[in-house]
Amino acid sequence: MIRAVVMPAPNQPLELREFTEPQLEPGGVILRTLGSEVCGTDVHLWHGRLAGVPYPIIPGHVSVGQVAAAGSGAQDVDGRPLAVGDVVTFLDVYGSCGRCWYCTVGQATTRCPQRRVYGITLSADDGLLGGWGEYIYLRPGVHIVTVPPELPWTTLLAAGCGLPTALHAVERAEVRFGDCVVIQGSGPVGLSAAILAQLRGAGQVIVIGGPPLRLDMARHLGADAIIDIGVTSEVDRIAAVHDLTNGRGADVTIEAAGVAAAVPEGMRLTRDAGRYVVVGQYTNAGAAEFNPHLDLNQKHLDVRGCWGSDVGHVYRAVQVLARYHTRFPWAEFVSGHYSLEQAQEALEDVAAQRVVKALIIPGHNHPA
Amino acid sequence: MIRAVVMPAPNQPLELREFTEPQLEPGGVILRTLGSEVCGTDVHLWHGRLAGVPYPIIPGHVSVGQVAAAGSGAQDVDGRPLAVGDVVTFLDVYGSCGRCWYCTVGQATTRCPQRRVYGITLSADDGLLGGWGEYIYLRPGVHIVTVPPELPWTTLLAAGCGLPTALHAVERAEVRFGDCVVIQGSGPVGLSAAILAQLRGAGQVIVIGGPPLRLDMARHLGADAIIDIGVTSEVDRIAAVHDLTNGRGADVTIEAAGVAAAVPEGMRLTRDAGRYVVVGQYTNAGAAEFNPHLDLNQKHLDVRGCWGSDVGHVYRAVQVLARYHTRFPWAEFVSGHYSLEQAQEALEDVAAQRVVKALIIPGHNHPA
Amino acid sequence: MIRAVVMPAPNQPLELREFTEPQLEPGGVILRTLGSEVCGTDVHLWHGRLAGVPYPIIPGHVSVGQVAAAGSGAQDVDGRPLAVGDVVTFLDVYGSCGRCWYCTVGQATTRCPQRRVYGITLSADDGLLGGWGEYIYLRPGVHIVTVPPELPWTTLLAAGCGLPTALHAVERAEVRFGDCVVIQGSGPVGLSAAILAQLRGAGQVIVIGGPPLRLDMARHLGADAIIDIGVTSEVDRIAAVHDLTNGRGADVTIEAAGVAAAVPEGMRLTRDAGRYVVVGQYTNAGAAEFNPHLDLNQKHLDVRGCWGSDVGHVYRAVQVLARYHTRFPWAEFVSGHYSLEQAQEALEDVAAQRVVKALIIPGHNHPA
Amino acid sequence: MIRAVVMPAPNQPLELREFTEPQLEPGGVILRTLGSEVCGTDVHLWHGRLAGVPYPIIPGHVSVGQVAAAGSGAQDVDGRPLAVGDVVTFLDVYGSCGRCWYCTVGQATTRCPQRRVYGITLSADDGLLGGWGEYIYLRPGVHIVTVPPELPWTTLLAAGCGLPTALHAVERAEVRFGDCVVIQGSGPVGLSAAILAQLRGAGQVIVIGGPPLRLDMARHLGADAIIDIGVTSEVDRIAAVHDLTNGRGADVTIEAAGVAAAVPEGMRLTRDAGRYVVVGQYTNAGAAEFNPHLDLNQKHLDVRGCWGSDVGHVYRAVQVLARYHTRFPWAEFVSGHYSLEQAQEALEDVAAQRVVKALIIPGHNHPA
Repeated sequence: MIRAVVMPAPNQPLELREFTEPQLEPGGVILRTLGSEVCGTDVHLWHGRLAGVPYPIIPGHVSVGQVAAAGSGAQDVDGRPLAVGDVVTFLDVYGSCGRCWYCTVGQATTRCPQRRVYGITLSADDGLLGGWGEYIYLRPGVHIVTVPPELPWTTLLAAGCGLPTALHAVERAEVRFGDCVVIQGSGPVGLSAAILAQLRGAGQVIVIGGPPLRLDMARHLGADAIIDIGVTSEVDRIAAVHDLTNGRGADVTIEAAGVAAAVPEGMRLTRDAGRYVVVGQYTNAGAAEFNPHLDLNQKHLDVRGCWGSDVGHVYRAVQVLARYHTRFPWAEFVSGHYSLEQAQEALEDVAAQRVVKALIIPGHNHPA
Repeated sequence: MIRAVVMPAPNQPLELREFTEPQLEPGGVILRTLGSEVCGTDVHLWHGRLAGVPYPIIPGHVSVGQVAAAGSGAQDVDGRPLAVGDVVTFLDVYGSCGRCWYCTVGQATTRCPQRRVYGITLSADDGLLGGWGEYIYLRPGVHIVTVPPELPWTTLLAAGCGLPTALHAVERAEVRFGDCVVIQGSGPVGLSAAILAQLRGAGQVIVIGGPPLRLDMARHLGADAIIDIGVTSEVDRIAAVHDLTNGRGADVTIEAAGVAAAVPEGMRLTRDAGRYVVVGQYTNAGAAEFNPHLDLNQKHLDVRGCWGSDVGHVYRAVQVLARYHTRFPWAEFVSGHYSLEQAQEALEDVAAQRVVKALIIPGHNHPA
Repeated sequence: MIRAVVMPAPNQPLELREFTEPQLEPGGVILRTLGSEVCGTDVHLWHGRLAGVPYPIIPGHVSVGQVAAAGSGAQDVDGRPLAVGDVVTFLDVYGSCGRCWYCTVGQATTRCPQRRVYGITLSADDGLLGGWGEYIYLRPGVHIVTVPPELPWTTLLAAGCGLPTALHAVERAEVRFGDCVVIQGSGPVGLSAAILAQLRGAGQVIVIGGPPLRLDMARHLGADAIIDIGVTSEVDRIAAVHDLTNGRGADVTIEAAGVAAAVPEGMRLTRDAGRYVVVGQYTNAGAAEFNPHLDLNQKHLDVRGCWGSDVGHVYRAVQVLARYHTRFPWAEFVSGHYSLEQAQEALEDVAAQRVVKALIIPGHNHPA
Repeated sequence: MIRAVVMPAPNQPLELREFTEPQLEPGGVILRTLGSEVCGTDVHLWHGRLAGVPYPIIPGHVSVGQVAAAGSGAQDVDGRPLAVGDVVTFLDVYGSCGRCWYCTVGQATTRCPQRRVYGITLSADDGLLGGWGEYIYLRPGVHIVTVPPELPWTTLLAAGCGLPTALHAVERAEVRFGDCVVIQGSGPVGLSAAILAQLRGAGQVIVIGGPPLRLDMARHLGADAIIDIGVTSEVDRIAAVHDLTNGRGADVTIEAAGVAAAVPEGMRLTRDAGRYVVVGQYTNAGAAEFNPHLDLNQKHLDVRGCWGSDVGHVYRAVQVLARYHTRFPWAEFVSGHYSLEQAQEALEDVAAQRVVKALIIPGHNHPA
């Protein structure tokens, strides 16, 4: 029997349940879980703040595992056949139809109605379809990316889902060489964005956030300036950014804060004709007020919502991590390892921000 | 002596004053005015709603004239030397320094602090620097575009400043073949945008506006559907657009309405991963409220403020008009010709929306 | 029994063979063929100039048909369930895997190794997988686009595969308002490109090609100037284009000529910092010589190869045709209708350029 | 009297001449030269391989100096008034008119007919308009960029004109996170491009070039692989790149080699649907042959010529250097410092590739 953590319903204690071994289909893969991330979305799931979740679920949407069995024809995104022992990760999003208007004409696959997400919108009643278990079953068609040998899997999980999300946002921001990039938010997405801005040749990276522990990490990973939201007002922050940018404002601002009021503030932090990417409003945090004349039209501003990640983002994230993980401290984003039995504790520690990031690591896999 | 209309101060009656002939500099040009536009901005100027205006001014920022005298080296944008008798128009924006950060690195010349605008931010105390007079003095460096012989100058004025503004917005909207384009507003900018959307191969053009007279014009110029804001609510309009787009919303929406509440509505009219250009908020019409999660981030929406026009927009507008003016009814956008003596009346008719557009035509130039 | 035209091998006479009714799968569709195009690619197939063709094949890659039977869940790209009697077309490209690097990270689905093409790389031994027959079987996953009721299906076939190909090229050319667009080639792709350039607001459209009959069509559909390759040299043509563009050259050039020497010539027809799209080199027409300094680097030129079409191009082509087919003479591109029995004659007439374009129309479907 | 090196005519010995102090105009600046670059273009100038050069000239187009006197209103690109003692660099290109079609509509200022270049197309008869002298006169309108205090001026000169050229090319290449970037050429442009590719988050950087000394530098600055042109054929190099890219070829290739045959090879090094930037063909190195079907159209390749640099490239280059110069070894690109008296020797050492790069440093300025 295989053990996995189940979230039976919102606001109910997590349970450790036993599952039978999955039936391997052609193209499918059974992964022995090395580890799986605990992120803010898992807290939202537990609080019942996401719509359309088919509880009970096995949480865990970013995971790394070792191939335990591979169905015929199973391969990774590069077309390499998968073999037992390969260390891989996979895109949580699965099942986009490839035929509807959004998948084809609209080139906006994140709006495909067939789309499902491991650890979020697939039910535990249908099998091992989330990361917080000893094994994960990857159905045929799941997009699998091999983890390069030089990249420790714990580092990949430390970067977690924040990295492809940040990568998507930074791509969409079209950072140019020498740009000043302001990042609103110092959680996993904001911190990865602060690294990635440097990997686009930014001339200056400013992180606005808190608490001090996270701002220290921002400094540590290379931010040129940090602004603590705990001791500043919107007016202070706009003034500080203008002081640092010869009076113009940021060339690029990336919102990864999650608070509705951050959005009009971000418009004002950005220079005329700059770019502003909003990637932190993943749940409904309420309304915000702005002035269309001053904050948008006269500024000739570009404001870009940024939703979801696709295969390319995960694939590119893995390549970037593999090459630059020794230069930037992604590995330090994790502050807690938890066994399956400690999953409830992990969730509560993340909810209380007692840790930057937590990993669920089944007992047999603890790194030395 | 040369006569020109002067706006001495906000909310004061216009006056007809006499000026001495301008001193022709090398590269400068004296134009005999054929006609000049009266547009909504002139009404705003008269109501004192624009900051930084050096009253007294000679209004008129889009004009056509015949070269009466050309200084040595005077030429048009194509590099053709100008000769007496040539019919030309010119970009109202003048004096961008070409050296500051906005002019060079930022490639956002509309934010250059040296920039001045004929008919708006140049004072009548400094000469014939606006279009509502018998002659206009074009200082060296003004960007001059020759009017092709096949294009009636009255048609160019009928399209007026709304055309380059709309052209800029439609370019920025990146309309793709077959897209559904929704236009909020049926004034001169909105109507030109509705034509230009067809000249980008839109599959469907929907104009939201009023009053019925303008919507009739929208139909006449090719709109596939019109929605009257006088008899519909926001909910109605969103439902109507969804009905026309297979439930998805517009691929592209262009705001040319001027009302702050139009902006959040426009976000909702647009499909997920669509593009929304805001070009109608030229004066401060107050604040608006939106939901960053629902209206922006989850929608993966692009929202683009669009400010000002540059030489390229005017040059391209002239080429487009010259080639397509017989196919689309730009010439019919005008409903009133006024002499210099009637300028006050023209201004009041535009303010009261008694005419779609008015032209000031000095007595000697009335078209047959 | 169902009759269909079979091309048994290169350079062999076409045959009319009988097939059994296809087995309808869930998501599959049986189409009663209304008509199917004969295009230059079919001539290449007959001459054996394409690699990897699994002869025998049923030719015909652009077709229109009426749904005769629809498997459960069959729907069009817009998500509308298909019903018997619906008139539809479909993308010939089928089977892209959606999982390989090209389909996902590379976003270049035309390089997917799983990809097959109706009428070209699917064998007649596997069923009715080409258009020149009484019925066509659309396997589950084929991308189906409903033909809007206002669009005659004969017009869609008259535009044929040249239209999505041209649409892709014109999109890739990023035509701007008022641009001068030069098109090399006056075959179906070139002629559609000449129309589409006008539907991007081009200021001037110049078609270079021949013979005179096709150049007459180019004039008829709106080209501002035509240049006959039969009576001009490369030097003449470059001079002519410079004369028409104030000495600068074309803003955009689109190659749809199919001759290797057209490519360096096209670089020289284009202005500095212009864009040049090469879409006519679908078969290997040999090498060409150019000067990297003069023709590319110093010109700051963009040269863009353009290969294949995807669902979006066909979908958009259908929307554009539906809206603009009464304004532009696509319907006149056809000069011959042929029955299944006359397929050999159709092929030979196209090969000999005796007709601009031919359609295969099974006996029961001849339009009035 | 002020001493400066003069190149009197092609293939003539350089001379040290004396000049009178320049007349300071409003907006002009007199710079005390700290140092000036000797680059390949200077060798071309000496060999008479550039057209339109008004010999005698003072060579030196990338220089750093200290403000000795500033005319009223003189300021840098950021708008900061210049004061005596400020350390600055400047864009060699000067005098673009800002009014012609190329400067305005075409947004291709490098084709402005008024454009002149310090050290190249400005005559010594008109003053101190090149860098190889004790002082340089910056005419009003020259674009001046302040050197940030943390950036040693010798490092800026070590990067030299190769850096903004490479920056322009890498921008134009649109490198995406994780891309494999191949660089053809290991001279100053190629080496800077290899650094900048890492500052765009490339997943792999491959440098093709020689001799071994330069390839060692490529390794040292972070290239993942190097390929020596001295011991490989085109076929070898293409095979090597395919081996390193899972059989696909480079996502992005940048040509900085200067040999015509490198261009068709570069097309073949690049994957289908990849991007290829040609920036090394600054002089006419003859013709090259390619196959439009195989190398361009079927590959769906983007080929982009890249000519000249503008203010933005220099400004951004300075910001990037200031922030990343301690992480990458630009400072080591220089292997020789020369006094004014040794200019002839410097030129000959660069011509013979005895040094990677040489600097001219007037006697009073030698760094400790």
